[in-house]
Amino acid sequence: MDQFISYIDAHKERFLSELFDLLRIPSVAAQGRCIPEACARVKARLEQLGAEVRLISTNGGAPVVYGTLGNGPRTLLIYDHYDVQPAEPLELWTSPAFEPTIRDEKIYARGVADNKGNLMLRIQAIEAWLATQGELPIRIAFVIEGEEEVSSLTLYAFCRNHPDLLKADGCLWETGGRDIAGRPTVACGAKGIQYVELIARGAVRDLHSSNATVVPNPAWRLTWALATLKAPDGHILIPGFYDAIRPATEIDLQTLESIPADDEAVLADYGIPAFLDDVQGVERLRRHLFEPTCTICGLVSGYTGEGSKTVLPSEARAKIDFRLVPDMEPETVLQQLRAHLDAQGYTDIEMVDLGGEHPARSDLDAPVVRAVTAAAEMTYHIAPLVYPTMAGTGPMYPLCQAFGTPVASGAGCGYHGTQIHAPDENIRIEDYWMGMRWMGYLIKAFAVA
Amino acid sequence: MDQFISYIDAHKERFLSELFDLLRIPSVAAQGRCIPEACARVKARLEQLGAEVRLISTNGGAPVVYGTLGNGPRTLLIYDHYDVQPAEPLELWTSPAFEPTIRDEKIYARGVADNKGNLMLRIQAIEAWLATQGELPIRIAFVIEGEEEVSSLTLYAFCRNHPDLLKADGCLWETGGRDIAGRPTVACGAKGIQYVELIARGAVRDLHSSNATVVPNPAWRLTWALATLKAPDGHILIPGFYDAIRPATEIDLQTLESIPADDEAVLADYGIPAFLDDVQGVERLRRHLFEPTCTICGLVSGYTGEGSKTVLPSEARAKIDFRLVPDMEPETVLQQLRAHLDAQGYTDIEMVDLGGEHPARSDLDAPVVRAVTAAAEMTYHIAPLVYPTMAGTGPMYPLCQAFGTPVASGAGCGYHGTQIHAPDENIRIEDYWMGMRWMGYLIKAFAVA
Repeated sequence: MDQFISYIDAHKERFLSELFDLLRIPSVAAQGRCIPEACARVKARLEQLGAEVRLISTNGGAPVVYGTLGNGPRTLLIYDHYDVQPAEPLELWTSPAFEPTIRDEKIYARGVADNKGNLMLRIQAIEAWLATQGELPIRIAFVIEGEEEVSSLTLYAFCRNHPDLLKADGCLWETGGRDIAGRPTVACGAKGIQYVELIARGAVRDLHSSNATVVPNPAWRLTWALATLKAPDGHILIPGFYDAIRPATEIDLQTLESIPADDEAVLADYGIPAFLDDVQGVERLRRHLFEPTCTICGLVSGYTGEGSKTVLPSEARAKIDFRLVPDMEPETVLQQLRAHLDAQGYTDIEMVDLGGEHPARSDLDAPVVRAVTAAAEMTYHIAPLVYPTMAGTGPMYPLCQAFGTPVASGAGCGYHGTQIHAPDENIRIEDYWMGMRWMGYLIKAFAVA
Repeated sequence: MDQFISYIDAHKERFLSELFDLLRIPSVAAQGRCIPEACARVKARLEQLGAEVRLISTNGGAPVVYGTLGNGPRTLLIYDHYDVQPAEPLELWTSPAFEPTIRDEKIYARGVADNKGNLMLRIQAIEAWLATQGELPIRIAFVIEGEEEVSSLTLYAFCRNHPDLLKADGCLWETGGRDIAGRPTVACGAKGIQYVELIARGAVRDLHSSNATVVPNPAWRLTWALATLKAPDGHILIPGFYDAIRPATEIDLQTLESIPADDEAVLADYGIPAFLDDVQGVERLRRHLFEPTCTICGLVSGYTGEGSKTVLPSEARAKIDFRLVPDMEPETVLQQLRAHLDAQGYTDIEMVDLGGEHPARSDLDAPVVRAVTAAAEMTYHIAPLVYPTMAGTGPMYPLCQAFGTPVASGAGCGYHGTQIHAPDENIRIEDYWMGMRWMGYLIKAFAVA
């Protein structure tokens, strides 16, 4: 693989330039921005690689870029996405979110870590393979969607409609990188999610706050309703919420024992004195990977500017996500939430479904897991950490679990400081080049795993 | 007074032009915008009237425009302010907030009702008096501040420093106008206020929401803390909060009996099906005027844009005002709130004092009340409604009650649809001209009341 590595070194400038061009497209799914532009760019890049590419839109959603190349006996499905999270709050970015900027050997831009960096380095690594190693020893099928950050709205239907396109011996997940101590990590599952917006309404317009004596205040109604969802001790109070949970197995828990928790480093990085309930070590990992959540992601009502304004708001909104573990189902959580709000007397509070996804798990001993793990070791000369699941979410259920396809994350440029979904999202440039090597070794390893 | 009225008719164009020039200055106290510009404009207009004018700044605050004219035996203090509320949310204005616009015989602009309309019509009415009736039969002292919308931050100190400037036989308050049925209203008291911002903090930056398993969420902390302040039944739970309340007297309650409640009209205007606890009629008025409040005026945390963003917020903020009735004190409420939050375990929640004011009441039989009332009857040919107090707040305590000066509102252009503090703030043009007559009759009546 020396030639492979030399090829990467020789083309670094163009590779970064291609990445930057993709990062400059503000393809924010939640705001409907520049989705066609990002989709076209990705399609063109895959075609440049020699792939056979189709754009497949389902129910009017953002098109999936589906591309295949290579003719080996094994098929590796590669899942990525070309959409990104909103960049707001813009004022907290050191440099503009959609103008990629290099500082301290890092690249700053919305989407560089989640997921345009991995997407591009995987394509470019395949280019390096073809240029230096000849034909691919495996068949590769890219599924690159444009709605990942809005709960993969139409991907479920795409998967149901095209089972033939998704047949594979293993799937490389979008995420991948190294942890806070520099160890490569491989994850073989994902949590599910249910995202909702709750809306309370009062008078038809904002009123002078002196009217609060007799006019209902939606900010209070929303506050009281939210307080019925989760107790200050963290217990989620929605009846039935915990019923479907499948606890971690003995093997899951043993896997956790092999993962260093790095509590102090994480606490320092987040700038907090302690984790919730002061959990530490393996118990923190267990809770992080095997427990569901109910999280206020956003709150807004009335006057939010500088200083004081004596206003009685006409509306209050909360954005809430529930992270789900096997075998919880998003549809069930949605029904339980509505029933709970109604039972508590909050029938007036509107609930908007902003998307849901099922949790998923994979066999820890599958060929794709072994190949990604071996490739990591060849790249970094250190044994990777295998996580039974991620704490994050993705459409792993419809893409993989529904067809029995094993799945693993890896061959990426993530690290603990990426600040994904937050201002100043970034990757370390060196991780980008190492992620390409990881991808190259994976092609080799998966052919024989 | 025929010549007085003819003079107004003859100068309507210039009068409106002067008002518009003042409205175009975005003197938003909470945002520190254009305060010197508005102050200079008001000073110049009073000097044009022949008043002797001083600008008096206390502790670096926005200057009070203090102006005197006339030599009659009685002194009428006139209190107004040249600052306005923030105009946000800007997108809800039909025409720009600081570009006064006439539609349907109304003037739309931030501050036109609160309080630049009354301020300007009172000055212009005095001009009409001087031009048609000769010398003023009373002495007038204007106190026009620039911090009314931020709880009159430095006016308390101004009043303590300058008792000599505030000696008067009565005070005309900034507010004044007609109710939903067209009846002129006179109010002889004001509620107090305490405004605070509560801030909960978590990680040093917004995190991916998957971390909510183990990382504290300030949006939840704030929600739980808020829910301890007020119960869903409306009862305020802060220990001692209600202790200092002086209940309405028999005379107060009798005064309420004379005021039509107009429940249906108010409900229709606000677009709500019922008042809190379905209160109606006199009981609604009693509650509105004689009970304190605890109001969430603003809430903000995390992602508040379109669609979904899976973020664990690093901060959550609530703006809260407490409206106070005699003999509650803002300093006491502040201490009670802090003690309550600490006792509930929310020592980590920061409390920012955004200003407080004492409640105040006046003698209902004072000369200024009689004069404002008589002048209203001369103007509108209908008996005005006398309110023992307003539900709103102002610095009536330091300006009037501290010196035993009786006070009444009136001689203004307010009406039920002004939307003060809200988008599309407006007055009816006809009310502006009628308010000037009310002011003219008041000069006459106060001289002999």
